[in-house]
Amino acid sequence: KKIAVLPGDGIGREIASGAAAVLQAAGKRFGHEFEIEYADIGGAAIDAHNTPLPESTLGLARNSDAVLLGAVGGPKWDNLPSAERPERGLLAIRKELGLFANLRPIPSFQKLVQSSPLKPEIAENVNMLIVRELTGGLYFGKPSERRGENNEVVVDTLQYTRAEIERIVVKAFEFAAGRGGKLTSVDKANVLESSRMWREIVNEKASDYPSVTVDHMYVDAAAMKLISSPGQFDVIVTENLFGDILSDEASMITGSLGMLPSASLSESGFGLYEPVHGSAPDIAGQNKANPLAMILSAALMLKYSFNMREEGEAIERAVQSVLNDGYCTPDLQMEGSTVVGTDKMIELVTQRVA
Amino acid sequence: KKIAVLPGDGIGREIASGAAAVLQAAGKRFGHEFEIEYADIGGAAIDAHNTPLPESTLGLARNSDAVLLGAVGGPKWDNLPSAERPERGLLAIRKELGLFANLRPIPSFQKLVQSSPLKPEIAENVNMLIVRELTGGLYFGKPSERRGENNEVVVDTLQYTRAEIERIVVKAFEFAAGRGGKLTSVDKANVLESSRMWREIVNEKASDYPSVTVDHMYVDAAAMKLISSPGQFDVIVTENLFGDILSDEASMITGSLGMLPSASLSESGFGLYEPVHGSAPDIAGQNKANPLAMILSAALMLKYSFNMREEGEAIERAVQSVLNDGYCTPDLQMEGSTVVGTDKMIELVTQRVA
Ligand SMILES: CC(C)[C@H](C(=O)O)[C@@H](O)C(=O)O
Ligand SMILES: CC(C)[C@H](C(=O)O)[C@@H](O)C(=O)O
Repeated sequence: KKIAVLPGDGIGREIASGAAAVLQAAGKRFGHEFEIEYADIGGAAIDAHNTPLPESTLGLARNSDAVLLGAVGGPKWDNLPSAERPERGLLAIRKELGLFANLRPIPSFQKLVQSSPLKPEIAENVNMLIVRELTGGLYFGKPSERRGENNEVVVDTLQYTRAEIERIVVKAFEFAAGRGGKLTSVDKANVLESSRMWREIVNEKASDYPSVTVDHMYVDAAAMKLISSPGQFDVIVTENLFGDILSDEASMITGSLGMLPSASLSESGFGLYEPVHGSAPDIAGQNKANPLAMILSAALMLKYSFNMREEGEAIERAVQSVLNDGYCTPDLQMEGSTVVGTDKMIELVTQRVA
Repeated sequence: KKIAVLPGDGIGREIASGAAAVLQAAGKRFGHEFEIEYADIGGAAIDAHNTPLPESTLGLARNSDAVLLGAVGGPKWDNLPSAERPERGLLAIRKELGLFANLRPIPSFQKLVQSSPLKPEIAENVNMLIVRELTGGLYFGKPSERRGENNEVVVDTLQYTRAEIERIVVKAFEFAAGRGGKLTSVDKANVLESSRMWREIVNEKASDYPSVTVDHMYVDAAAMKLISSPGQFDVIVTENLFGDILSDEASMITGSLGMLPSASLSESGFGLYEPVHGSAPDIAGQNKANPLAMILSAALMLKYSFNMREEGEAIERAVQSVLNDGYCTPDLQMEGSTVVGTDKMIELVTQRVA
């Protein structure tokens, strides 16, 4: 299997190689050959190639079986016009590779419940999967422009086709059928026409999944419920921007952004895997970054793109056992634990995987 | 002063008259004459007049000095086509009266900190004001329609004019200058053109308010920070839909949706005041509803629209003193307190105001 690793910027550079090491250890143990090739994206690519997503990077991704991405962005590139910024690389690769399904599992980590801003009795026993549509909506709809004689009017366009909504909704139903059997579709159908179409499609598809219980929730209500009773959710499916907001909100439940992986899949099952956290320029290069979200993203890659369930779970168990043994990085607040740096954490997990 | 009271639906009907009673008590004590007239909106108006916002209601509102609104909606009207539903009455009255500035104060109530889903140390000492734009964005932008041969494409439009953004931004700066001197503007400038214009305007106006510190935050980051460190915010300003989501999320911080008022102001200072909670059809008519958000909305009316600061604060103090004496409605979880019904709660507050 060929894997493209795109470290990106900031702490992405430190944690990407760690995840690669863990993958190699898993490959060795289970007898797989992982061919890993690196390329630039985001700010690093702007510096080296004058564009956040060089053709060569896109080409490598297309010729690989999966992509592992660190994080993009940093103050160095903050003053560029928005069309040239590092995030454009991320948006472009999602669109170019047709990565329409963004999966964000939000588990609760027993050991970390104390670091949640929520009360422990609310933060524990959370186990949800947010399925966010990733290539449509306000992110890519045209027109997105200024108008009028003095450019005094500005518009953005929230656009979806029926087919785009259907494929993400079907994906979400499939996940719900394979998990807790509950799907919450989040929209703003009391205001948006796109949400009304979304709701219709969810209701249509529901009959194909009799084992799944469906309900609809307005996005404002969902933003409340995610905090007041996150344990009620199994699978949430929603459009791109709502998913951006709600999945980041939900990521706070665990109290450990540094632990959360994500997967972005195309129709063929090809996927890009990245941690939920950003490039954290403030701690970059200081051996402080938590590599676990990136390592867990690699585990998701094995499970979702390579159908290597056992191998992926071996990585997840290794992470769990390191935490259980009381090791953590500085971002995690675990009482009575040994705080270690990025390198040491990578080493600990790699050893256990091997 | 003439006040239009629109009880609406569900618990709106029980709490509206209570707020009116409290207003009359304040009027008597401070020597003001409040002329109160009732009219229908939402589901009640659909039943009586076949439209969620009858001309007569709009006329009454226009001829009044302020509007006090309960809540709209309920299962009875859920199967109507969306263009005819109770919420349309709400959207229409906002638009017709030019109520562009929605104000949502989020205080922490010392007595209620325990009922927040957040840890007490995070939920306490919160004191923010969310300023939400209310008459633009995706709520009213055109086109909002289905397209293509088989209606297989759907679009909604996020539209703003420079003038619309300017007036809400200026409003927010004014509030920030009169409060903690900190303004957080929330947008998605890494994706939306409208957000980039929004950000430019905030930066332009900043120079008129040298006493205010401004920062910009992406909406996804704001959704995280509202939970992880809500105490960092003073005034937040944002566009309509982001404001809808974030203000509902923030309303959970206090742990008491039943305590939160809101104000929606026009350029002239005319305002509509309503509790943040909805019509709660499940508890309607059972003397269980918490009337305090509605009563506190009346207090905001006195302060913002009638310039009666002392009178408004007298109501706020009355509410505070009833809570301090250990009375609460069933929705509030206060240890060792006496649970009372809607009527009794209204009576307690009215007595103390008088
Ligand atoms: C960087 C930004 C454009 C991106 C998004 O909004 O999709 C990020 O927030 C994410 O969720 O991956
Ligand atoms: C009922 C609905 C249309 C409304 C809105 O989205 O504005 C409500 O959520 C609110 O915040 O007042």
